[in-house]
Amino acid sequence: MFYNEDTITASATNPGTGAISVVRISGKESFGIVDKIFDGKLKISNALSHTIHYGKIIDSGNVIDDVLVALFRSPNSYTGEDSCEISSHGSAYIVKKIIELLVDQGARLAEPGEFTKRAFLNGKIDLAQAEAVADVISSSTEASLKGARNQLDGVLSAKVGELRKGLISVLSLLELELDFVEEEIEFVPLKEVKKKINQFVREIEKLMNTFHYGKVIRDGVNVVIAGKPNVGKSSILNFLLKESRAIVSKTPGTTRDVIREDIDIDGYLFRLFDTAGIRFTSDDVEREGVERSRDKVKNADVILFINDSTYGYDNEVYEEIKKLNTSANIITIFNKCDLKSINSMKSEINVSAKTGEGMERLLELMKARVDDEKIYTEKSAVVTNIRHYDALKKAKEKLHNAIIAIDEKLSGEFVSVDLRQGTDYLGEIIGEVTSDDILNNIFSKFCIGK
Amino acid sequence: MFYNEDTITASATNPGTGAISVVRISGKESFGIVDKIFDGKLKISNALSHTIHYGKIIDSGNVIDDVLVALFRSPNSYTGEDSCEISSHGSAYIVKKIIELLVDQGARLAEPGEFTKRAFLNGKIDLAQAEAVADVISSSTEASLKGARNQLDGVLSAKVGELRKGLISVLSLLELELDFVEEEIEFVPLKEVKKKINQFVREIEKLMNTFHYGKVIRDGVNVVIAGKPNVGKSSILNFLLKESRAIVSKTPGTTRDVIREDIDIDGYLFRLFDTAGIRFTSDDVEREGVERSRDKVKNADVILFINDSTYGYDNEVYEEIKKLNTSANIITIFNKCDLKSINSMKSEINVSAKTGEGMERLLELMKARVDDEKIYTEKSAVVTNIRHYDALKKAKEKLHNAIIAIDEKLSGEFVSVDLRQGTDYLGEIIGEVTSDDILNNIFSKFCIGK
Repeated sequence: MFYNEDTITASATNPGTGAISVVRISGKESFGIVDKIFDGKLKISNALSHTIHYGKIIDSGNVIDDVLVALFRSPNSYTGEDSCEISSHGSAYIVKKIIELLVDQGARLAEPGEFTKRAFLNGKIDLAQAEAVADVISSSTEASLKGARNQLDGVLSAKVGELRKGLISVLSLLELELDFVEEEIEFVPLKEVKKKINQFVREIEKLMNTFHYGKVIRDGVNVVIAGKPNVGKSSILNFLLKESRAIVSKTPGTTRDVIREDIDIDGYLFRLFDTAGIRFTSDDVEREGVERSRDKVKNADVILFINDSTYGYDNEVYEEIKKLNTSANIITIFNKCDLKSINSMKSEINVSAKTGEGMERLLELMKARVDDEKIYTEKSAVVTNIRHYDALKKAKEKLHNAIIAIDEKLSGEFVSVDLRQGTDYLGEIIGEVTSDDILNNIFSKFCIGK
Repeated sequence: MFYNEDTITASATNPGTGAISVVRISGKESFGIVDKIFDGKLKISNALSHTIHYGKIIDSGNVIDDVLVALFRSPNSYTGEDSCEISSHGSAYIVKKIIELLVDQGARLAEPGEFTKRAFLNGKIDLAQAEAVADVISSSTEASLKGARNQLDGVLSAKVGELRKGLISVLSLLELELDFVEEEIEFVPLKEVKKKINQFVREIEKLMNTFHYGKVIRDGVNVVIAGKPNVGKSSILNFLLKESRAIVSKTPGTTRDVIREDIDIDGYLFRLFDTAGIRFTSDDVEREGVERSRDKVKNADVILFINDSTYGYDNEVYEEIKKLNTSANIITIFNKCDLKSINSMKSEINVSAKTGEGMERLLELMKARVDDEKIYTEKSAVVTNIRHYDALKKAKEKLHNAIIAIDEKLSGEFVSVDLRQGTDYLGEIIGEVTSDDILNNIFSKFCIGK
C-alpha cells in the first residue's frame, strides 16, 4: 500500500506564535521515531489508535517541552499511514527543535503537500479531492468554502468518473469491433456511437459552463469602480466598505494607486478596485495610475460605471470602458442624486454616497450578477479549478475529433485513439491517469505540513 | 473546583493559513456544546477522555469541515475542566465559523490567557508557572527556553514556597508569643528571630541576584557596536551576521538608523545594534540617528567599542561611552588589523572585518560576558520576570523593616506586621496571595487561546 518507505515530518500549524503548535509525522517508522524522543507513561508504539498521550519531549536529558501526542494507526489516518500529531506550546523555536529531533531519529522533512500527496497515492482521496484540500484551506467566504467542500466531498470526481466510465464502455465496444473488422461484423452501428459521443460532449460542455461560476465562488468577483475623476468613486467604495479606507478629497486625481478591498456580500467575495479614473494626464505618477486602472477594467467581471448627476451621462468614458472590456457586466450608476434628480434613460440606479440613498439596491444589483451565474444546485458538480477546466476542454476536443473521424468514415482505429485520449484527459482530473509532472505541479503549490 | 460556570472557546493556533487549525473549548458544557455541531460515529459526551473522533462540523445541514475532535475529561486537561480541541483544515474562515457555531450553542469567547488563568485558578499550576507558559511560547533560543522551562517546571515556585513557609513558621511563633505577652514568656529569643530573618534576607538577595542573568536568558543581551564613523562598525556587524544586512560604504555617516539584528551564540540571544556613530553633525537626519545611538549606548549590556588601527585609540569616544553608561561591559576592539599591526595596551582584541582575523575570538569574548553572569546551575531557581523581582525586593524591604523593629525594641506586633507583609509579597509570586488586578495584568498579556 505504501508508495514509499520513508517517514516524513513537518509543522502542521502556522509558524507564528499561537497557543499551541502541531508537528506531524507520517510513515511506517513514525511510532518508533516518536518513542525515541518522547517520555510518557506509555510507549506510543503500544498505544491504541486515536488516543492522546501526555509526556515530555527529551533532548539528551533536557526537557524541550511537555506535549500531547495523538496517534493514528494505518489505514485510519489522513495519509493512510501510521502517523502522529505532536501538540506543543506554540513556539517556532520549540517546533524547530522537535522537528530536528525527529529528523535525527530517522524522519525526513516533508515536501510541500506531501502528506496530502500520500493520502492520494495511498488511495484515501482522488486527485480532485486532494486539490480541494488546498482550496478548503484558502477559502475565505461561505461560497468558496462550499465550492471547495463540494469538490472535497467528491461531487466533481463522481461526475467525471461517471463520464469516463461511460466513454470506456463505448471504447470497449469499438475495440471489440476492431478485432472482428475482417468479418465486417458491426456490433454497434457507428451512428449510435456518434450519438453517444455527442451526448458526452454535451455533458462535458455542461461541466465546462460551471467554470465561470466556479471561478467566482473560488476566487471572487472582480469589481472595478470606474468613471471620470471627482464623480465620487472613492466615496462609493468607502460607503461599500462602511469604513474609510481610500482617501476621499475634492481634488481630481487623488486616487493614484489602485486600491483593492474585499467585501463579502451574502457569502460571495467581491474584490473592489477603486481606480485613478480614466483620463489622460500630464502628471507622470498619475499617468501610471491611469494605466493601472485600464488594466483593472480589462480584467473586471463587473464594472461600476459612475456618473455625476450634476454633469449628466458620460458617454466618452462608457465608450472607453467598452473598448477595453467587451464582456464585462457594466452597472451604470448616477451618483450625487442628492444634488440633482436624474431622469436619464441610461441610469440603472441613482445613488448618493453622501446620504446612502440607493446603496442597498446597488449591493443587490452586484449580488444579482452572481446569481445570474448560479446555474448549479448545492449538490451538483461545479468546476472551480483551471486545471480541470483545461482537461475537460482537451477531452472535448478529442471527442470532437472522434466524431469527425466517424463522419469522414476513417478506420475505427482513428476513432478509438481519439476516444482513448479523451478518456485519459478525464482521468487526469481525478488522478486515474497521472504523470509525475502533474503531481509535482499540483502538490508543490501546497503549504509544507499539508 | 470550577471558578466559574461558563464555557469558553477560542482559536488555539495562529490564524494564518497552516495545514491545520485548532479551536479550543473548555468548561463544564464543552461536550454538550460540541455534540450539537459535531456529526461523528460517537457522541463526544459518551467518549473516553484522551480519545480522538473523526466527524463533520454541521451548520444547519451544511458541512463546514471534516474535523478531528480530541476530548479531555476533568481534571485531566490543561484547564482542569472538561475540554475539547477541534482540529480542522487550516483556515481562518473555517475557524471563525466553528467558533461562531460554538458561541451560538452557549460557549463564550475566551479572554486572552483565560485557559491558562483557569489552569491556575483550578490549581493545575501556580502563578509563576502560568507566567512561564507565556515565556515558553515566546522563547527563541535554547537559553530562553531552558529558563522558561525551569520556571514552568516549578523550580522558582518551590524555592519561593520554601522561603514563604519558613517565614510563616517564624511568624507563628512570634504571634503565639504575642498572645502570652502579659505573662512575659519568651518562646523564641528575639536574637534568634533576627538571625533567622537575616538568613531569609540573604536567601532572597541570592534569588534577586539571579535576575540579571535571568533577564539575559529571557530577553537576550543588548550589544551596541559603537565608535567613530568609518571605523568599520557595519563591516563587523556584517561579519557577525555572516550576511550583508547593513549598508557598508566608505562615506562616513552611512548608517543613519540604528540597525538591529539578533544572533544566537551557543544558545544565547544577542541583540546587535549597529549605530550611526557617536559624533556631532549638522545634518538633521543624521543628528537624529546620533541621538538614537546614544540611547542605545545607555541601555547596552555589552558595548563593542571599535577603534581604527590606522588611527589609534579613540579616547574621546571612550569617555563619551563611559559618560552615557557607567555599568556596561565594554570590549575595546581594534579593527583593520590587516592594515596596521597594533601594539596598544588599550586593545583587548585586534580584528579585521576584512580578513576575518580575530572574529572568532570576539564571539568568545561576547559569550564570556554571559558566562560571567551564569551563577546558577541547571536545576537551581532563577528569576527572569520583573514582577517576581519587584515582589522579592518588596519582601526584602519588609524583612529589613522587621529587623529594624527588633533592633529598636518595638512591640512584637510591629515585627509581626512587617513579616506578614513580607510573606504576602512572596505569596504574590506563586499566586498564594493575589488580587484580581495582578491576575488581570498578567493574563491580559497572553494571547487569546492560551
